[in-house]
Amino acid sequence: MVTWNNLDTLAAFSKLIQLKDCVNIARAMTGENGAARVKKYSAPMAAGLHFNYAAKQVNDDVLAVLAELAKETQAIDKYKELLSGAVINTGEKRLVLHQLARGQQCDAVIADGVDKREFYVSQQKKIAAFAKKVHAGEITNEAGEPYTTVVQIGIGGSDLGPRAIYLALENWARVHDTLKMEAKFISNVDPDDAAAVLQSVDIAHTLFIVVSKSGTTLETLTNETFVKNAIKNAGLEVSKHMLAVTSETSPLAKGADYMAAFFMDDYIGGRYSSSSAVGGAVLSLAFGPEVFADILDGAAETDKLSLNENILENAALLDALIGVYERNVQNYQCTAVLPYSQALSRFPAHLQQLDMESNGKSVNRRGEPIHYATGPVIFGEPGTNGQHSFYQLLHQGTDITPLQFIGFKNSQIGMDVTIQGSTSQQKLCANVVAQIVAFACGKDDSDNNKKFEGGRPSSIIIGDQLTPAALGALLAHFENKVMFQGFIWNLNSFDQEGVQLGKILAKRVLAHETDGALKEYSDLLDI
Amino acid sequence: MVTWNNLDTLAAFSKLIQLKDCVNIARAMTGENGAARVKKYSAPMAAGLHFNYAAKQVNDDVLAVLAELAKETQAIDKYKELLSGAVINTGEKRLVLHQLARGQQCDAVIADGVDKREFYVSQQKKIAAFAKKVHAGEITNEAGEPYTTVVQIGIGGSDLGPRAIYLALENWARVHDTLKMEAKFISNVDPDDAAAVLQSVDIAHTLFIVVSKSGTTLETLTNETFVKNAIKNAGLEVSKHMLAVTSETSPLAKGADYMAAFFMDDYIGGRYSSSSAVGGAVLSLAFGPEVFADILDGAAETDKLSLNENILENAALLDALIGVYERNVQNYQCTAVLPYSQALSRFPAHLQQLDMESNGKSVNRRGEPIHYATGPVIFGEPGTNGQHSFYQLLHQGTDITPLQFIGFKNSQIGMDVTIQGSTSQQKLCANVVAQIVAFACGKDDSDNNKKFEGGRPSSIIIGDQLTPAALGALLAHFENKVMFQGFIWNLNSFDQEGVQLGKILAKRVLAHETDGALKEYSDLLDI
Repeated sequence: MVTWNNLDTLAAFSKLIQLKDCVNIARAMTGENGAARVKKYSAPMAAGLHFNYAAKQVNDDVLAVLAELAKETQAIDKYKELLSGAVINTGEKRLVLHQLARGQQCDAVIADGVDKREFYVSQQKKIAAFAKKVHAGEITNEAGEPYTTVVQIGIGGSDLGPRAIYLALENWARVHDTLKMEAKFISNVDPDDAAAVLQSVDIAHTLFIVVSKSGTTLETLTNETFVKNAIKNAGLEVSKHMLAVTSETSPLAKGADYMAAFFMDDYIGGRYSSSSAVGGAVLSLAFGPEVFADILDGAAETDKLSLNENILENAALLDALIGVYERNVQNYQCTAVLPYSQALSRFPAHLQQLDMESNGKSVNRRGEPIHYATGPVIFGEPGTNGQHSFYQLLHQGTDITPLQFIGFKNSQIGMDVTIQGSTSQQKLCANVVAQIVAFACGKDDSDNNKKFEGGRPSSIIIGDQLTPAALGALLAHFENKVMFQGFIWNLNSFDQEGVQLGKILAKRVLAHETDGALKEYSDLLDI
Repeated sequence: MVTWNNLDTLAAFSKLIQLKDCVNIARAMTGENGAARVKKYSAPMAAGLHFNYAAKQVNDDVLAVLAELAKETQAIDKYKELLSGAVINTGEKRLVLHQLARGQQCDAVIADGVDKREFYVSQQKKIAAFAKKVHAGEITNEAGEPYTTVVQIGIGGSDLGPRAIYLALENWARVHDTLKMEAKFISNVDPDDAAAVLQSVDIAHTLFIVVSKSGTTLETLTNETFVKNAIKNAGLEVSKHMLAVTSETSPLAKGADYMAAFFMDDYIGGRYSSSSAVGGAVLSLAFGPEVFADILDGAAETDKLSLNENILENAALLDALIGVYERNVQNYQCTAVLPYSQALSRFPAHLQQLDMESNGKSVNRRGEPIHYATGPVIFGEPGTNGQHSFYQLLHQGTDITPLQFIGFKNSQIGMDVTIQGSTSQQKLCANVVAQIVAFACGKDDSDNNKKFEGGRPSSIIIGDQLTPAALGALLAHFENKVMFQGFIWNLNSFDQEGVQLGKILAKRVLAHETDGALKEYSDLLDI
């Protein structure tokens, strides 16, 4: 039986606080000592990736206390409870089963009278069969013609994860001749979002997937109607162009307008739902079900590695622990995610939701206020773009921001050019390497304006190429990191009560049931 | 003559510190008091926009001291010196003239023997004439066919601002029948960026603009060669497909491969260059020169309003002062930019560069280390998307993040749908209004998990519609805000020495002149 305690009551945390500033990164990363750290401070990940944390503010002493913290918080035991179907989401009194959607690491989970692994697999099979028929031209539009485009209508977790994954693998799929359909996304209730996407597609050859677990998401239902109108106005049949991904109990599940409905359930939160039908339908249609299966396999391999009690061989847990050290001992408020891969252009936006919505909380699992910092602000853009943008502040600003780099040895498309003795891919990799060392070691200069303090911690995840399996591994790495941090901070990482108040007030505004500031603002915006 | 002093030496700043937490936003924004604040705390902006700061942590006492701070820092005098051609960029010993590219607010500026306003106008005219010929089919490709697409090759300021503006106005231009050419952008040295863009365009009908002030930017020169190879491989002539935007002294200025070259100069920094030929060429080709002129007019109107000594009528200065109060008195580290407009999807990324690269500094204008916080971390995504993502942390996280909302009464495309008695546009506006009040006032609840502390400050910029003039006004508002904050923090906001070290180390990696950690990392990435 695990016990849940606040971070500031733990013996290991008291020890950790004593280790504040005990590592001078600039000194540690200089010379042969630095070389030795790069070799030593590396943990294996799934799909051939590695998590290198040499430039983090750790040494063997810090790591030893982090191992104690992992043990004292029973991080692995809690993970096993989660995998086995415990009610980890205490706020909503729900199981947390997104890992089960991609593999079974522990006992079978029976809930609502069914084996949940079988349920998730059955939905995957249903989606795969449907996608294959669409690709084979067996399922067609009114005119008997094949579909060429798929549009996901969803917001938050029904948008950010699937969109980031689609963009990450679109070029890879093109090269590997497995881009079956182009995918687009409508998310915002701003009517210009749906209108612009509709103008960019050929509706007659498009499948729209309405994605809402509850079937009550304002933006998604509104955009569904928006799209249905457009389908009708084009003289087409809605039921030849619409699919639903929802829970079996939602109003959408019974909709007569859908060609097919694929199911998720209440045990997979939006931001964790890329592994469920939410990601499965659009990605299987876009890339084929085999590619989606490869993503899940990379994620499942990560889930398995995340069970390792040895923090030095458990990259997700180690990453989580170092993050807690940075947040609660070093008092850093933000984390920048910096993938040196244009394909990962929207991956930071996905992680922003994953992390900030999971751990941006001020009460513990029992609803008691806590008195230590929790989830950081997450932001980021791909390198090398970011170097020409906000890196100035990261290098010379007045606050320190820990950095999470991601880099791959090879590009996806493989089209490249050699200039001044190096390819673009080599230049890309040279830049990420250079940045790690520049941030860590800095540079002295007699002109203060050209001086770099250094001491700015970073880690890097390195892979051969951004493949479906590597992407699945990345996805699960960060999901599991966030989960472990929630355990350590004693949070419920799986609800999001902070989004409710805005919804309630927006309804009041639309019903014109306002007074005070709310009414004045409404007038200013002509509502 | 102005004097430059550190913030922590100023009498007004000492007073301001005494006013920490003097406003309880939740209380101030509740009831009739809140309604009165919304009416009162509003400043006019250019192009019909308004800056409403009712939900900021200010009252008349704070505003009075902020006015003293503006006076003591001689913010307006410094702005006038900048406009008149003083060497405000002390690090690089340069004038700062981006405002002059869109209008002349003060004296004529003569530099390098020319009237700089005339120089900028001459380039605008040259671009306009060229664009009109392209649109009229007078300038054509090898086969005598018109160009349909323009691709900007640039990074940082040559990419983020122009790209954000293009995306902001693409749908508006389509509706107003002034989308002359589709625009795309290549920025990253990642070869997959250029390869993917090239695969998505018809090279035979595409104009590529190489944009680099110095003509030495690694990424841009590499991508130029990448594109030139593709043009040649398609059996086409490079000189029929390439333009340059650069300074007159750069190697690119003399390139024989360009159909035309348009010039900027050293007095406009990359992140401020959207108003110069950097934005002018691509936007005039995409939308027509009249639209670009409208953007500049909106910006110039802002520049004029920014001269007002009364902070209550000078939105950019007021926004800057409130930001300093939040950063240096309330100790908030980040600012989120949240436009309720899908068209502004990349505007936060532009502001991220503008702000973080300008004011992410730790030394003052004289190169002396300073001992107070400077530029914040800037991040953001469009609403309502962000509501379903990172707003959880903004509402209930352990740190407070000031918020900058932007909202418009009308959509751009005008295609809309009424559901449950309201349009999508009304729902969008209702949501931003609801969020301001939710963040400010919070909500009590017996369940701590459903409790909202409130007290989270925000401002909102409100407009009728996102037009070219409104966008120009927004652009200049934030440029001038950042400029004023640089004055108050006693920074040089116009250099970026923090980007240099990474470049130097990357060159060493590519030359294999590495040892220690740099060599080990290089080996890990197979460089």
